[in-house]
Order: sequence, then C-alpha cells, then structure tokens
Amino acid sequence: MPSIHSVARAQCHLAWDNRRVFFDLGSSIEPVLRIKSGDTVNFDCLDASNGQVKADSTVDCLSSMVFEQLDQVNGPIYVEDAQPGDTLKVEVLSIDTADWGWTALIPGFGLLHDEYSEPALKIWKLNKEEGYAYLNEKKGIKIPLKPFAGEMGVAPGKKGAFSTIPPYNTGGNIDTKHLCAGSTVFLPIEVEGALFSMGDGHAAQGDGEVCGTAIETPIKAQVRLTVMKDRSYTKTPHFKTSSVTINDEEYYCTTGVEPDIREATRSALRHMIKYLCDQHGLDAVEAYMLCSVAGDLRIHEVVDMPNYVVGIMLPKSILSE
Amino acid sequence: MPSIHSVARAQCHLAWDNRRVFFDLGSSIEPVLRIKSGDTVNFDCLDASNGQVKADSTVDCLSSMVFEQLDQVNGPIYVEDAQPGDTLKVEVLSIDTADWGWTALIPGFGLLHDEYSEPALKIWKLNKEEGYAYLNEKKGIKIPLKPFAGEMGVAPGKKGAFSTIPPYNTGGNIDTKHLCAGSTVFLPIEVEGALFSMGDGHAAQGDGEVCGTAIETPIKAQVRLTVMKDRSYTKTPHFKTSSVTINDEEYYCTTGVEPDIREATRSALRHMIKYLCDQHGLDAVEAYMLCSVAGDLRIHEVVDMPNYVVGIMLPKSILSE
Repeated sequence: MPSIHSVARAQCHLAWDNRRVFFDLGSSIEPVLRIKSGDTVNFDCLDASNGQVKADSTVDCLSSMVFEQLDQVNGPIYVEDAQPGDTLKVEVLSIDTADWGWTALIPGFGLLHDEYSEPALKIWKLNKEEGYAYLNEKKGIKIPLKPFAGEMGVAPGKKGAFSTIPPYNTGGNIDTKHLCAGSTVFLPIEVEGALFSMGDGHAAQGDGEVCGTAIETPIKAQVRLTVMKDRSYTKTPHFKTSSVTINDEEYYCTTGVEPDIREATRSALRHMIKYLCDQHGLDAVEAYMLCSVAGDLRIHEVVDMPNYVVGIMLPKSILSE
Repeated sequence: MPSIHSVARAQCHLAWDNRRVFFDLGSSIEPVLRIKSGDTVNFDCLDASNGQVKADSTVDCLSSMVFEQLDQVNGPIYVEDAQPGDTLKVEVLSIDTADWGWTALIPGFGLLHDEYSEPALKIWKLNKEEGYAYLNEKKGIKIPLKPFAGEMGVAPGKKGAFSTIPPYNTGGNIDTKHLCAGSTVFLPIEVEGALFSMGDGHAAQGDGEVCGTAIETPIKAQVRLTVMKDRSYTKTPHFKTSSVTINDEEYYCTTGVEPDIREATRSALRHMIKYLCDQHGLDAVEAYMLCSVAGDLRIHEVVDMPNYVVGIMLPKSILSE
C-alpha cells in the first residue's frame, strides 16, 4: 500500500547537488524524506521569492530583495530503488494556490530586460472559485488560472552545487505551463535515490514566461513519484498533458522574423506589447506582464534560412469578456 | 460590389522585388492583376517544388531537383489605394489541396540536416473527405489535414530581388500552420500597390516544420485582400486564428534544455525522434518527418539564464486510433 508523506515549507534548499544539498545560505542537509517508489508526497511551498514578496508588498520590496534566497525548492526526496539511468515518473495529482500572487519586472531579468529597466510589481487577487484573476478589471482583462510548479527536478550526476535558477536536463526550473494537475513529467535519474525536489508555484503562465515572472504564488502540491526502469530514452524532461488550449478559442498572434531565434522571439514580443498598447490601451509594463502570464511562444518556422519565425499567441477571450 | 479575380498556375515568380518581379529564371513581369481593396482572388498554385515532385515520383527526383525553381509564389497582385505604412488584411477564405502530397528530407536542409544526410521522400495519399493522411497505416499513425499556404507576402520596400525561400517582416515563406481557412493575416505594406503573392501549399504541418518540408501539395486558395489605414503598429506579420488545438487532446512532449534556443530546439527534436523510434517502432527518418508535419515547437522558458527550455509537442491521438 503506497504511503502519503509530507514536506514542510521550511524543508527547502537553494542548489541542486547530488552529495549534499544547501539549506538556505550554506549549511548542508540530508534528504528530508525516504520513500518507496509509488508513494505520494504533499508539498507545502512558499512562492519563488522565498516569502520576500507578500500580499501587501509594494514595488520597493524588489530593491531590497536578496537574490540568493530566490527559487528555493522543497525536498529533496530519496526514492528507494532509484538508480542512475532510471526515470522518475512524477504524476501531478493536485496543485492549490494561495488566494494572492505577484508578477514583477526585476531589473536585469526577462527577455526584454534591456528595454524595461524600471522595477514593477503587480499583486494579484486570485479568485480560485471562478478560476480567474483580473489584470485589469475595468478593461475586463482576466487571466484563467492554471496552477503548476515551475520547479520539478532531480539531482544532477555531475559533482557540485548548481543554482536552482536555470533549468537543466534533469529538470529544475523548467517553468513549463503545461505541467498542471493531471499531467505527468518524466525526469532522467542520474544519482541513487533520484533526490527529487519541487517548488516555484505559478497560478498562470504563458509559454516562455517572457517578463521573467509568472503569477507567482505559494502552493500546496501533491505528486506521486514512481521509478521506471524501462525508459532509458528519457534524457531530458518529457511530459504528457491534456487540455493544452480551449477548442475554438480565437488567438491573436504577433510574429518576429529574424536571423536569430532569440531575436525573433524578442521582436514578436515587442510587437505584441505595441499591439496591446495601441489597440487595448494597456501601458507597456502591463502588456509585458500580460504576455508573460498568458502569451504562448511558438516557433512557427525554424528551417527557412537565414530567417526564423517566432510567434507569441494570446487567447482573445482574455482581452474582453 | 467587390469582384472576384483569378491567378493561374503559370502566373508565378521566384523573388520578392518591389520594382519588377522575376518570372522563373529571370525575365521581369508586371503585376498579374490590379484589384480594388476588398476584392477576392482565387489562386491556383503548384506545390513548392514547382511541379518537380509528382504523385508518382521516387526519391531520385530529389537529386535532379533544380533548387532555383523552388518556392515560387503566384502573383503579384497590385491592390489599389495601398500605400507604404498601410496594412494588408488577408482573409483566408478557403484552401483546397490536391489528393496527394509529399514530404522530403533534402540534404543540407532542415533543423537536423547535419544528422540526416541521406535524401528521403514520402508520397502521401490525402483522404480529403475524412481529413486524414496515413504516415503509417499499419501502425495507425495518421495526420489530421489542416491546409494552409506556406507563403503569403508583399514586396519589400528595399530595392533588389530577394529569394522567396526565407521569410521576411513583409511575410513570404512564414510557413505558419495557423494560417488555415478562417484565419486572417495582417502584412505591413512597404510599397504602393502592396504587391501581394502567395503559394507553397501545405496539407499539414507542425509549428517549426522541422525537417524542412510539410505535407507539400498543390492548392487552390481563395483570399480577400483589404487595405487598412489604421494599423500602423503592424510591422511584422500578425494573424488571428481559431481552433489551435482540439480540446482535451493529450500531448506527448520532449524538451531540450540548452544555453542556446536553437540547440535546445534541436535537442528536443532529437529526443522526440528517439522516443518515437523506441516506443512506437518508427524509423528515424519517418519519425523526423512526423515531427515536421505534426509536432509543435514551443518555447516553454526563455528567461532562466543560462538555459532555455524548448519542447516539441505531439498530439497522442496521432499515434494510434
């Protein structure tokens, strides 16, 4: 009979490390749990600011933010029988958010950081019953909530302590909006016990998370962890998911066409921000945030050299009731 | 009362040029039609091989292919009242394909061209009534047909003759799967008369067109062309579209996590090919083609430096009935 375990908010760390895992600013810790393959774990996770942004925070909190504390993950979990070369199946059973969240422009961070140098902070009220949060109630711009954990990962095989901010082939901060409840993630195990951790709750995000933050929020998550011996082809995070978009939803898309995919992405984003400002009366910062929480980056064309086409697609239903 | 016009197969050209447009291998031509804003045009377009691949072709046709003849577009259409700074609204009213199509690996072309050096050709039978084409009938792998034109564009403001193979900010070979019947494309007009052309019929394609070809096919297309004076923010192709995906469709996704978006894209693709080979018994070439015609590239995460996360998402319904 599989067991149910719990990981508390304080059981978190700030580096992926296969030998020891750093708790807060330096002390090493052991795995917080040892479970059997197939067991379920309940996680209680603070938001990615590690509690530095609160429901009543103002933009000033960004200037005093301690960056070394960001993107903590809860865990790690030692899963019995997990060996290098195996795959960890992570079934996302449920994700519950707080009733508030935040989105910020943090100087130096985000796809257009060189064009948006001023800090900005939006605190969201999450209407969990209706499943929406208003970006702008007067304009009727509301974001459908679809919570997921931005961070899910296992310890790397390589020696050393790796920041929890970048994603890796072993997972971590993959910030993938499709990993909501009902989805399943497969992670390549590189060390004995797998050493799984998760965190970074998001109430909603578009493909790309372009401004650098989603609707960040504390979450309570339940996942089932199972070791698989027959998926040696899993060498990067794989996943399966349903309900990618709503049927017959109309999208508006701006594209960027450039000889570099990143520049094409930046161009597409810039043009969507301009469209939202010109046509929907948003200010640029609000528009940039909207793209981050609800716009999906797709690579439309990747082969007709020398130019790539990247689009950012926004569901039109978001823009008015 | 808006008029309906027609453009024939032979009325095509091989360069975007605002002063004169090259017909086949060099002779200059005038616009093939002069229409009023709001008129409708019926296009009859050969496939992107310009008729060099036929329903009974074998892989040998690729070695004798004349590349200078590829990606012809039909037109150009001079639209009255169109001035630089205006926007051309292109409403895609209908797209009808032939009953066959082709997909090829062309040496030197495609996202993994360095890993797939041998030419390959698949001829598809398009079951238009059912709306499917089988990649592999025995395995039950079928591709839903969703026809569109890979090329829609207007002449650039810059002087000179520009190849029809790359896409530009004025459109052209943008190869964007979402531009099926019912969608609307907005193109920035850079020259008097706009000089619109289109071609490159695709019966189905994923975001990316990763192997370099879609299900290529001759098409008959009907579009309505309207000059808009109030969209000065349109400086790259924009579009709106419905029915992006089917509700509750389950997707399987492999990701690539790399410090370069293009390399992350290549990694995601490589891993999907490996998954399809290992788990669904496809050979690598077949799998690569399947990714090109039905796999969607999405940039899941573009901000957590130094690594990007790109995924290729494949609807699971394609893999079995």
